[in-house]
Amino acid sequence: MPLEALRYDVTPVGMHYLLTHFDVPDIDGATWKLRIEGRVRRPLDLTLEDLLERPSVSMPVTMECAGNGRARLSPRPISQPWLNEAVGTASWTGTPLAPLLAEAGLEDDAIELVFTGADRGIQGDVEQDYERSLTIHETSRPEVLLAYAMNGRPLEPQHGYPLRLIVPGWYGMTSVKWLTRIEAVSEPFQGWQQVDAYRYRKDNGERGEPVTRIRVRALMAPPGIPDFLSRRRVAPAGPVTVIGRAWCGTAPVVRVEFGVDGAWDEAKLEEPVGEFAWRRWSYDWTASPGEHVLTCRATDAAGNPQPLEQPWNIEGCGNNLVQEVVVTVD
Amino acid sequence: MPLEALRYDVTPVGMHYLLTHFDVPDIDGATWKLRIEGRVRRPLDLTLEDLLERPSVSMPVTMECAGNGRARLSPRPISQPWLNEAVGTASWTGTPLAPLLAEAGLEDDAIELVFTGADRGIQGDVEQDYERSLTIHETSRPEVLLAYAMNGRPLEPQHGYPLRLIVPGWYGMTSVKWLTRIEAVSEPFQGWQQVDAYRYRKDNGERGEPVTRIRVRALMAPPGIPDFLSRRRVAPAGPVTVIGRAWCGTAPVVRVEFGVDGAWDEAKLEEPVGEFAWRRWSYDWTASPGEHVLTCRATDAAGNPQPLEQPWNIEGCGNNLVQEVVVTVD
Repeated sequence: MPLEALRYDVTPVGMHYLLTHFDVPDIDGATWKLRIEGRVRRPLDLTLEDLLERPSVSMPVTMECAGNGRARLSPRPISQPWLNEAVGTASWTGTPLAPLLAEAGLEDDAIELVFTGADRGIQGDVEQDYERSLTIHETSRPEVLLAYAMNGRPLEPQHGYPLRLIVPGWYGMTSVKWLTRIEAVSEPFQGWQQVDAYRYRKDNGERGEPVTRIRVRALMAPPGIPDFLSRRRVAPAGPVTVIGRAWCGTAPVVRVEFGVDGAWDEAKLEEPVGEFAWRRWSYDWTASPGEHVLTCRATDAAGNPQPLEQPWNIEGCGNNLVQEVVVTVD
Repeated sequence: MPLEALRYDVTPVGMHYLLTHFDVPDIDGATWKLRIEGRVRRPLDLTLEDLLERPSVSMPVTMECAGNGRARLSPRPISQPWLNEAVGTASWTGTPLAPLLAEAGLEDDAIELVFTGADRGIQGDVEQDYERSLTIHETSRPEVLLAYAMNGRPLEPQHGYPLRLIVPGWYGMTSVKWLTRIEAVSEPFQGWQQVDAYRYRKDNGERGEPVTRIRVRALMAPPGIPDFLSRRRVAPAGPVTVIGRAWCGTAPVVRVEFGVDGAWDEAKLEEPVGEFAWRRWSYDWTASPGEHVLTCRATDAAGNPQPLEQPWNIEGCGNNLVQEVVVTVD
């Protein structure tokens, strides 16, 4: 998502970030089915039509890639080289998962659900369908959706057509696209994307902690105009309102500060776009001639501010280091 | 555009390639106007509503970035590092430009039209609105559109909302987005994007030849499944139908050959999706165990095949070197 798109409450299709592990699969919505099975009393096979007939919910959700900010780390982990652009807010429409689980009847020993996508490939030398699990506790939240529409239209192929999971508040790897199967299991899932990837580790030997909810972050739409190659910004002297967005998956954002050359001041925070979506913020800056370093920093309701030093890990996940934008004012 | 999207006649929104020189501008379609002026007898100011009331045409057009293939060149020019993915086919809807020019009444000394976009930035040390010109001869072709819709919906911001030029057959830099002005001029336009960029040159001292129409090219959707990091392909042994697309802006594509480890054979060509859109092709390959290099090569009606050696130039434009896909069959 180019950062000027922070101006939109809901990110236009094609500007929302996208992380595709393997190929976008070729699925015919007319013959596709979702299977709910495993430790359930009544396995279900659901067509897209079945799902469209169920109760429908639409809500704006801010989704962010766990690797957002990775390319700003030093040393730089080798993977998708995101700077700050792997975020977006879409209006997702779907049917809540919890009532479907109730219909299927989870067995008492079910502890997790494993979500399987139709995308298949090789990662870490393991051939795999893309699969992630989530605890029964997390999947029972009312905001967890099986989504079939984005911004009021059927999902585009690259966003998970015909059906994807949406887990508000969690990094994007959790919201499995191209869903084909949901399996209730009685042992913790040991799939590659669960135990080998998406872990906070300082070195390869560690098991590490799992990557889960989105860490607090604010981003600004860089003011002025860009240079094509360097993407450095140039802006005229005088008053300019800098705008941005802030979000967090663990607690509400309660504060955004704006920094000019290291001096922090309070930004003006607007109401969130939705319970699980970002808040717009703005700051009236008077740009004086010279080169300036602009920063922004959000703090969540638990009192966690964004770090000023990089939270390094070998996969480069969860890097919510404050954004820096260098602007030449003339 | 990830190459598996070659499966679609019309590329879904968000999978079509996008090259944005500067920021996506923030335009209010309700107050926006297009000005047609310069060497015309009756300058026109047109609202979006005015344009929507005019005769409307929809057609599929294959568009490609002049820099597609740049990152495969050696030495590698520094700019947008496209491999082969900067292409797409959209169904564009708009009103033909020629009748509007007739209404404005071109003066006899008008030789070119200059198209100005609302996107502004710095390139080659020159601050500029994005601007390109085209001769009156080229702009008078019936297929040249002022487009306000893509795939049946209003343009998304990043594709030029509210209005863009569509020049079928030409590389994408010609189809100026976020149009604000069309100026008829009596001298050749000397703007940066016209005389300093988009030229075929072997070194910086040369003026070079302008980049114009799309060179002949075929691409395949790589068979099998990818490895996440290397994007290398793995496929099972046995019969597989490899599909792809071929297009050309100077003459129709008349032939596609498919190569396995250097041995060429004829691929099966289907009818074009439209007069200015790509043709689907396919090849039935029997994959034998081992590592194979797959290639494809289109030839146009003028007898020009794609080159087997890179057509190098300093900007890395028009590189239609044949695609190579390495597949490990097991």
